[in-house]
Amino acid sequence: MPEQLNDQTLDKQFAFLREIDQLKSVIRKSPLIDKSRRENSAEHSWHLAMYALILKDSSDKEINIERVIKMLLIHDIVEIDAGDHPIHETVDNKTQEEAEQKAADRLFGLLPTSQGEELKALWYEFEAAETNDAVFAKSLDRLQPLIHNVATNGGSWIEGNVSHEQVKQRYGSVISAGSKRIWNLVQKLVGQYFHR
Amino acid sequence: MPEQLNDQTLDKQFAFLREIDQLKSVIRKSPLIDKSRRENSAEHSWHLAMYALILKDSSDKEINIERVIKMLLIHDIVEIDAGDHPIHETVDNKTQEEAEQKAADRLFGLLPTSQGEELKALWYEFEAAETNDAVFAKSLDRLQPLIHNVATNGGSWIEGNVSHEQVKQRYGSVISAGSKRIWNLVQKLVGQYFHR
Repeated sequence: MPEQLNDQTLDKQFAFLREIDQLKSVIRKSPLIDKSRRENSAEHSWHLAMYALILKDSSDKEINIERVIKMLLIHDIVEIDAGDHPIHETVDNKTQEEAEQKAADRLFGLLPTSQGEELKALWYEFEAAETNDAVFAKSLDRLQPLIHNVATNGGSWIEGNVSHEQVKQRYGSVISAGSKRIWNLVQKLVGQYFHR
Repeated sequence: MPEQLNDQTLDKQFAFLREIDQLKSVIRKSPLIDKSRRENSAEHSWHLAMYALILKDSSDKEINIERVIKMLLIHDIVEIDAGDHPIHETVDNKTQEEAEQKAADRLFGLLPTSQGEELKALWYEFEAAETNDAVFAKSLDRLQPLIHNVATNGGSWIEGNVSHEQVKQRYGSVISAGSKRIWNLVQKLVGQYFHR
């Protein structure tokens, strides 16, 4: 339900759109494919939305692709306050979860109330990874850095000293929950990389 | 209509998703709001998709917000081959148009045929700026750099020596075609900037 449209609504919306510009300065572990630098979370979010648009027919379960795209557009916004936490690093999950929930309250709280609540609910749905849409979104979020690591001959796996077995564990379950087809194909790429 | 799903389909889709990583290295004139560097076209595309998601109720005409978001996700992909052409620079329009069409053929041509044709058609629709969806998408593409220029105390207007009158001309018609409400509000911001 749209709120009543007035200048105050627009002011809040612009404040949010200005604030999230900071996602362009959150730097991830994954390299760009040309290895020129590391990827930031804003361009990563764009790339994931494109992954969803292109790979939508590979989801094992029925999905609403538009919801998946929206989920992926907002999935990392909490990192503006809570930072990026790569899968190959140990982290205090409870502290991290609390920091992200606080970030979601602050950032989505900049928006008009009902719009902010709607997006926060979508972010919680992504985090919970239970609905078909969230499971597919999560699988793409795990897939894209794998593609970059293979394409850059190791990428963040080299720094993190990650083994073939660890890649299969840390990526396989999440990717194959969304699409067994995709995991079947990419595990061949992963195998080729580790046997080189 | 999805093509038959097989490994060749996925290979083509992955080739496209790897290729468009280069959009992260196309640098625009607009600064980030913290002025730390210029924006690239991939993170700009993410930001525009977020503009659409947040400002959807401000469109003057009825729109399909999911189509607008998809349009904005792909609107700059041709820049991988054809480069970014800022509005405050003179450019040979015919040469530029030909370069972009060639880029669209090559890049969307990496995809399975029907998927590539569908996205190319969506990009042409954006470029033609005739449908409601394209008019609103174009207005957001003009709005976002304006917000950055105001927030950074001039941004690319200073380098380009752009006057208040030129801003009204170059931004006003496109933004107000999508949303008179938004233009009414932002022209106040623009006025405040130029009277400082």
